[in-house]
Amino acid sequence: MFQGKRWEFVRSKIEENIASNSLAPGEKLPNDLELAKLYGVNRHTVRYAIRALEQKGILRVEQGRGTYVVENPTPYLLSAETRLTDNLIAHGRLARRNILSSETIAADERLAKNLQLSIGDEVFSIRTLSFQDEVPIVIAHSYFPAQRVPGLLDEFSGVNSISKALKRVGVEGYTQQWVQINARMPTEEEARLLGMSTSMPVFIKENLDCVDGKPLKFGENVLCASRINFLINFAELKSR
Amino acid sequence: MFQGKRWEFVRSKIEENIASNSLAPGEKLPNDLELAKLYGVNRHTVRYAIRALEQKGILRVEQGRGTYVVENPTPYLLSAETRLTDNLIAHGRLARRNILSSETIAADERLAKNLQLSIGDEVFSIRTLSFQDEVPIVIAHSYFPAQRVPGLLDEFSGVNSISKALKRVGVEGYTQQWVQINARMPTEEEARLLGMSTSMPVFIKENLDCVDGKPLKFGENVLCASRINFLINFAELKSR
Repeated sequence: MFQGKRWEFVRSKIEENIASNSLAPGEKLPNDLELAKLYGVNRHTVRYAIRALEQKGILRVEQGRGTYVVENPTPYLLSAETRLTDNLIAHGRLARRNILSSETIAADERLAKNLQLSIGDEVFSIRTLSFQDEVPIVIAHSYFPAQRVPGLLDEFSGVNSISKALKRVGVEGYTQQWVQINARMPTEEEARLLGMSTSMPVFIKENLDCVDGKPLKFGENVLCASRINFLINFAELKSR
Repeated sequence: MFQGKRWEFVRSKIEENIASNSLAPGEKLPNDLELAKLYGVNRHTVRYAIRALEQKGILRVEQGRGTYVVENPTPYLLSAETRLTDNLIAHGRLARRNILSSETIAADERLAKNLQLSIGDEVFSIRTLSFQDEVPIVIAHSYFPAQRVPGLLDEFSGVNSISKALKRVGVEGYTQQWVQINARMPTEEEARLLGMSTSMPVFIKENLDCVDGKPLKFGENVLCASRINFLINFAELKSR
């Protein structure tokens, strides 16, 4: 007979199922009512156990979709060249992208500073949501100095790929100058787009891409921290 | 007259004080009761406003200590050579370190894999808590293959510096092979040690240091994400 609280019994049962792979990474759990029936407890107890496992990073609650066993996070290798899409393809995970917005805006202080522009200069702003295995993982905001890449927005709407659109306006072989990584709690909107709980963190990754030493793209990405991690391989960076 | 909810009034007042620098980064706010009196509202309203500002990353609630204006996060420059202490000193922030534990343990599967040992081999384990400006920022776990650095624990207890202790056992000039960065919610113990809320995220930074291509140290650090961020400068890495 199990000694301890009811919710701990439910938690231990779910953990056993994950350990034995009866519940595989990425798999959806039965709903709260079914779990309550299965374990002979009430729904409140089930939710308490699930929240404890969510805090431990073992389960993931997606708003309005259900509860899932967390996959191992995809490593995102940071280097001067690698793009997120390349990373996902290298890990055999199909990347899909939805365009959230694509527009011309005026540079504010932060954009002007990062893109070496004057405040008010035209900036192309592209906002997308990317998926791996149909799970959303990153909200990407990309900002380009409009006068350096004329026609970019038109090309982008046709090909839905920033690197392809850049090629069409004559830009190839840009390199990453720097990356900065923060972590914080998501806003309601970010959590909704990423299909994640507002009680789990996101990474904020900012970066600058350059061509011939000139700023080409300032990026600000919001990534679900339970689905991705960052890897920097200094041994490899040095050997180039 | 302020239009809107009472807690929004309190929030806007605190934000105004921060914007005008009447409340400086790192400064402690009056307690809830004093704020309630000051703004003519009840403590519940004050707490609601503070929680909203905590979620926005503007205030930081330290368990049992009080509420503080968040400092700008210290950038932690990742490279093959830089150490956390060097980073803090470069930013003019005095680093202090408390030893939490220092012991010999047996390698488990993860340590054996990372340090290229067999399971059960002796490993020196050092756990410290580091501060910047008297604010705790990182719980550092460091693991060393005992047979490669005999006497390290004894030396460490004398100098309270891993790099100094390594020099005394004859190890100099180790380099960082890789770094991996995750983010998650802190455990109760981590939040207590770091003096932070359990509702704000931590970074988990794992890394491997090598000497002559051999593993010297596997590190697992827990960092308060609101007080630090990571910066990788690829332009500089390439020019070496």
